[in-house]
Formats: sequence, structure tokens, C-alpha cells
Amino acid sequence: MTAGEAGHGDPPARHDGGPRPGTSFQEMWRELLPVGRHPGSGGYRRYAWTGADAECRAWFRQQAEDRGLAYEVDRNGNQWAWLGDPAAGDAVVTGSHLDSVPDGGAFDGPLGVVSSFAALDELRGRGVEFARPLAVVNFGDEEGARFGLACVGSRLTAGQLTVEQAHRLTDGDGVSLPRAMEAAGYDPDAIGPDPGRLARIGAFVELHVEQGRALDLSGDRVGIASAIWPHGRWRFDFRGEANHAGTTRLVDRRDPMLSYAETVLAARREAELAGAVATFGKIAVEPNGVNAIPSLVRGWLDSRAADQDTLDTVVGGIEKAAREYADAHGIDLDVVRESFTPVVEFDHALRDELGRILGKDTGLKVPVLGTGAGHDAGILSGSVPTAMLFVRNPTGVSHSPAESAAEDDCVAGVRALADVLEGLVRR
Amino acid sequence: MTAGEAGHGDPPARHDGGPRPGTSFQEMWRELLPVGRHPGSGGYRRYAWTGADAECRAWFRQQAEDRGLAYEVDRNGNQWAWLGDPAAGDAVVTGSHLDSVPDGGAFDGPLGVVSSFAALDELRGRGVEFARPLAVVNFGDEEGARFGLACVGSRLTAGQLTVEQAHRLTDGDGVSLPRAMEAAGYDPDAIGPDPGRLARIGAFVELHVEQGRALDLSGDRVGIASAIWPHGRWRFDFRGEANHAGTTRLVDRRDPMLSYAETVLAARREAELAGAVATFGKIAVEPNGVNAIPSLVRGWLDSRAADQDTLDTVVGGIEKAAREYADAHGIDLDVVRESFTPVVEFDHALRDELGRILGKDTGLKVPVLGTGAGHDAGILSGSVPTAMLFVRNPTGVSHSPAESAAEDDCVAGVRALADVLEGLVRR
Repeated sequence: MTAGEAGHGDPPARHDGGPRPGTSFQEMWRELLPVGRHPGSGGYRRYAWTGADAECRAWFRQQAEDRGLAYEVDRNGNQWAWLGDPAAGDAVVTGSHLDSVPDGGAFDGPLGVVSSFAALDELRGRGVEFARPLAVVNFGDEEGARFGLACVGSRLTAGQLTVEQAHRLTDGDGVSLPRAMEAAGYDPDAIGPDPGRLARIGAFVELHVEQGRALDLSGDRVGIASAIWPHGRWRFDFRGEANHAGTTRLVDRRDPMLSYAETVLAARREAELAGAVATFGKIAVEPNGVNAIPSLVRGWLDSRAADQDTLDTVVGGIEKAAREYADAHGIDLDVVRESFTPVVEFDHALRDELGRILGKDTGLKVPVLGTGAGHDAGILSGSVPTAMLFVRNPTGVSHSPAESAAEDDCVAGVRALADVLEGLVRR
Repeated sequence: MTAGEAGHGDPPARHDGGPRPGTSFQEMWRELLPVGRHPGSGGYRRYAWTGADAECRAWFRQQAEDRGLAYEVDRNGNQWAWLGDPAAGDAVVTGSHLDSVPDGGAFDGPLGVVSSFAALDELRGRGVEFARPLAVVNFGDEEGARFGLACVGSRLTAGQLTVEQAHRLTDGDGVSLPRAMEAAGYDPDAIGPDPGRLARIGAFVELHVEQGRALDLSGDRVGIASAIWPHGRWRFDFRGEANHAGTTRLVDRRDPMLSYAETVLAARREAELAGAVATFGKIAVEPNGVNAIPSLVRGWLDSRAADQDTLDTVVGGIEKAAREYADAHGIDLDVVRESFTPVVEFDHALRDELGRILGKDTGLKVPVLGTGAGHDAGILSGSVPTAMLFVRNPTGVSHSPAESAAEDDCVAGVRALADVLEGLVRR
């Protein structure tokens, strides 16, 4: 699909009438805040191809139209807002995502999209001449909250997820990704790799709230990413035998909850030993009755480390321990790697250029830090020179309603992103 | 409500037309087998006030009408089928329940109801003269699978659950018990204690599949219950802090899954030490995302022991350990006792009478055994002389699709129940 064509089924912009002046960062933020927020938890539930997602997407389209940008949806449902002709090539692209984890915070994703529009406004205010096309992007289904796989939009575009694999994805209610896309008005048969689109991009920069405390500890508002740790998800299926919790003697039991519990503790130990992280944060139990010994305990392991060898050691150690526990309790164990992303080293030349641009007025060195979180930038880095900016998170808390960033730091993030984009588009 | 009046909203009987001859045990069994069976698991999902429950209830009503019994539904939704005038008092009542745990077996509950109708047929075949009224009963919502509290129908009738408590019960989807009853066509404002009904009952006998292997180990087809172990359900709420599983350093985490896992293992240890049982079979996690450290892990403990002191020791030990683990991880822990049933000693005179009746032809002693499972018979035993018969379970497996009983043993159960009822109604 070429620039300017709206995707089939794409939601209408939120406001009718002619172009509005570009809204300020604060105004954009206020508009997005209520969308998909759960009144009970205070967290966000903006899952791919749901009503909340459609509202976010309508907001994006409105921002593009308000600024007179050429709006388009690509074959994989990612939204683009173009200034200049994308066909000219060597485009500078910035953006992030608008979806959320279950009960996520307001900043993870939306801060990058809002800051991208705000930075574009700033460049126009500065009277910058654009020697390259510039786009703001919203990648679909980054968190993978609904279908269990992160970065579906960017993975498809980069050819890191096949159409067949994507078509097999299903949510917790058994709804497949194609059916979900269809229900949202998009064509699931159109999805697939988009090398031509990527070939027209000269640089991608994603701004993101930091999901740790490195900038808080160093006292900096903004940092540059060095690398994304290798990370993956593994599903541990412990299968035992359902039975009555009141009448089955302990010696007659095959209770999978015991091996699961032992494995949770083993994961923490292995991660501590290796200086990595390992988490069992999601579980599904059958039949999940108070007075029934479970037949199945399914636990998902998320693990990440600074390098591949360390990660292999951690996950190998956890799996070995789990098998010993399972054997001891007469439990059948299946371990399935559901996803894996190798280490991502961001483009060194682009990273150094960002450092020069951001340090040019102050002469100060901008901190460069690694991260355990996956991002669309990590997916794109295999095809396009890619960089990331992080904005300080005073508590480090993320994937939680308590996630936060100070307004001054957000403003500093917008300015840094504007500086970087200005430096890039002038070339 | 008096005998013969059908409850408001009560489902019609499954068959139209005039009375049928009483169907045999095997025919009744075959009719019930497909109702509420999940095609995937092969287990039963007959939850209170659902469509599957209504089908079971229609089946019960049909059995009553086929036999010319006076059918009625009491104020709490329990179904009764009367032979003779209940107003005469000193009635002999037998029956059980038709609902199931999630993915339960075919026998837990239905075996008692089917055997009751079959035993009544047998008594008529023997030409027994009934000196006392006789009823078959189906108690509603025995398993508590939907609203979390077992034996709601019998508890309400016996005044062991107040109307206010019952009205506050809600299912996993937030549907309250009153709304669920209303949706099924029953009047939730009519529920409450029913002492007049209980006063007209002289003896209650419940036949049930054994939920353990005592009869299998002793080589007997049928046994008599001595007592129900004291048992209860406790909810453990471990509250930590949701955070990103990839970027949050281990030392910065407050991950409630760790204390939960340690507590699961402590429960097993404490139960082993005391010769009791303790099970964490149900869990709810928030936000339950693969890449999110949980904010809340809620685990339900089911624990039972032969006597109150032992149970107190076990649960006290588990809670003490859980608090230590929670403190060590910065987790807030709430422990709530959701239900509790003290030890039930069945009526000694009635138990001895059952022993005499069943042993009179063979001279053999019928085994008398305790059980860790709760039953409507346990609830009623506070108001009415009550006894239970158990039918051999060759594997001991219960609350599972694998639950079983041999047809010969079921037939022996029907004969034993008929003998007992004959002995009682002739008095």
C-alpha cells in the first residue's frame, strides 16, 4: 500500500472537520490517557485488535491528519504518518507502539508515539528544512498481550514471523489472529514481509520510557541504548493427575503444582547465580478447583541475560531442575520455547551520531545503556540502522499502573528526539 | 412449598406423555452420561444454575414423574420426589447431588441419586410395605464449583448459611448467586432456613462413590461412613508489585510468585508431618502476563485432617511459614478462611443399624471408614440422624474424568441401599 491510502477497515480519525493545529505534548497525552484504562486496576488493557486498540489507532490517524501528514496503514496493520515522499528513500522514521501489557502503565509505548509527533512539531517550529522524508510509526501488537508473541507487527514486516506462524496465533478465548484482524476490519490474508518498505528507511529511532533505574541512579534525564539483551519465553507444562484434594492420600498423588513451585524457586536461584533475570509471571491451571488436585499446571518462563551463553546456562539449569522435580513426583514435563530474540546490538554509527548530536551543546557524555526489554527497534535493527532513546523512570517500575516519568523528563525527551531528528533529516 | 408443587421456573421433565415404567439403573445412567460432559476433557462441567444443571434437574423431575412420585422443589432449589405423605413425618430420605466440580467424574453425586431411584424400584419390586414416607432428594450446588462455597443447597436448608451470606456469593464472572438463580427461573428472595422440612425427616442416607482406596484395599464393595474429617478452604493473597520481567533487577523486585511457591511446598511438608492433606489446587494471578512480575498471586488452600487439633496445627504451620516467606520478599499477605466444616460424626445408632441390616445375611462386618470429603449428609447431620454408604472406587481417583466404579459394585451399592431403606421404612 502506498503512502496516503488508508488501510481497509481502518478506524476513522477521532475528530471530524478540517485540520487542527498540532496539539501540544500535554494535550496529546491527556487525550490518550483515558483510552483502555481499567477503572478497577487503574492499568491499561489496550490489546491488539480490540476496541481500546481501535481508539488508540483513531487517535493516531487524527494526529496525522491534523498535521497534514500522509496517513497509511501497511499490510501488517502498522500505522504511518509521512512528511515528504516515502518513495524518495533514505527516510528517517520515529515512533513506538500504543498497545499495552495487561494492566500496563501509560508510558510504555505511547510516550514514544506522542514524543514523535511533538518532536515533529518542534522541528517545524524551528523552521528545519527536511532533506529526507520523515515518518511517525505506530507498530501493531508490540506487547503480545493477546496472542502471546511480542512485536507481531514489526516481526511480520521484517520477515521474522512467517504468515503461517502468524495465522496460527490464538488468544486466550481461542480467537485466532486472522479472525481478530478481520473482526477489526483488516485483511489477514494481506499480511507478510515488507522488504520494499524497509528498504526506503535510512534510520529508525524509537524513544521509550526506561524500564529500569539506570538513568535514575546516574542522574540523567535521557540515555541512548547500546543493546537489547537476548531474551525468550518458554512454556513449562507439568502434567499430573486430577484427583480429590480431600480424599487422595499424599502418597497416591501426582500433583503438578509441587514441581511447578520448585521450578519457580529454581528459576530465581539460577538467575541470581548468573546475574540474569528469570520470571514465572503467567500460569494456567486445570481444572483450577479449590478441592481438586490439578491435572495440569502450565507456567511461562521469561528469561533474559546480557549474552547468549549466560542465557543458555540459566534456562538450561532451570529446565534440568524442573525435570528432576517432575520425575520425583511422577509428573510429565514438556518445555516449549515459544519465542526467542538473540542479542541486538544497535547500529554503532547511528548510536555514536546520536551521542554527538545530544552532547554538542553541553559537551557532556550521554549515558549509553543496555536493556532487558524487547522493542520493535530490536526487530527492525536486523534490516535498518536503528537507535533508541530512553527517558528517565524515577522508580524503574514498568508494566504496571505505577509506571511513571516526570513531565520535565518527558519534555527533555521530546527535545532530545527533536535534536536527533533534526541532525538526521538535514543530511 | 408443599409436596407436589413444582418450583417456579423449574425445568420441565425431559419426556412428554404419560408415566413410563421406572427405568433401570443402567438406563438412568446412560441418560445422564452425556449431560454437561466437555468434549475436550471428557470431564463434567455441571455447575449450579447453568444449562447443564437444568438438564440434570429435568432428568430428576422426569424420574420422579415416571414413578408417580410427588415432585417438589424446596425454597432453596433442592429437588424432592416423595412416596407417601411427607406431612406424616419421620420420613426416610435418600439422595445426593447432580452437579460437578470442574471436569469432574460421572459418579461423584449422580451415583447416589441414580442408586436412590433404583433402590426405590427394588423395594417396590420386593413388595415392601412403606410404614414411613420415603423421598429421593437432589441437593443443589453441592460442589460449590461456581460460587466457591460447597453444599449451598443443604447449608441454606439447615440454616448453616445465612441468606445475606448466600446473596453475597458471586461466580468468577462476577454474577451473583441471586442473579444466577433468577436467570435459571428461581426466586432468590425465597431462599432461607427450612426447619419444618428437616423436622419431618427421621433419617437421611446418602450413597456415594468412595473418593479414596480404603474399600479397594480391604476388598469390600460397600462400606459405611464413620465421620467426615474437619475441613476448610483458606485464601492466601500474596501482594507484591507488578513490574517488567525483563528490566527489573532481582534485588528491586517484590515478586509474590516466590512466596506462593514456597508456601505450596510448606503445605505439603506440614501435611506429611501430620498425616493430613493440604492442597493448593486453584490460583489466580494478576496481571498474569508472561513478561510481567505479578502484582498479586492468590492461592486457595484446601486442608483436612482426622481431627480438629491436627488440622489447626497443619494450617497454622502453613500460615506461619507463608508469613515468613512473604516478609522476606517484601510481600503483603492476607489469609482469609473462606469456609470451614467441623468434624462430622455420623449418628451412631443409625450407623449401627446400617451395619446390622447389611450384615444380617452374611454375618460379615461391613467396613466403617472416615472420609476427607464434605457431603450434604455432613451438613444435614446437625439436624437429622444421618448415615452414608460408600461404593468401592478401584483407583481412588475422584474429581477427575478418570473417576470410576465397576458396574457390579454399583449394583451391590443399590442392593445395600435398598436393604437399608427397607429396614428403615418398615419400622
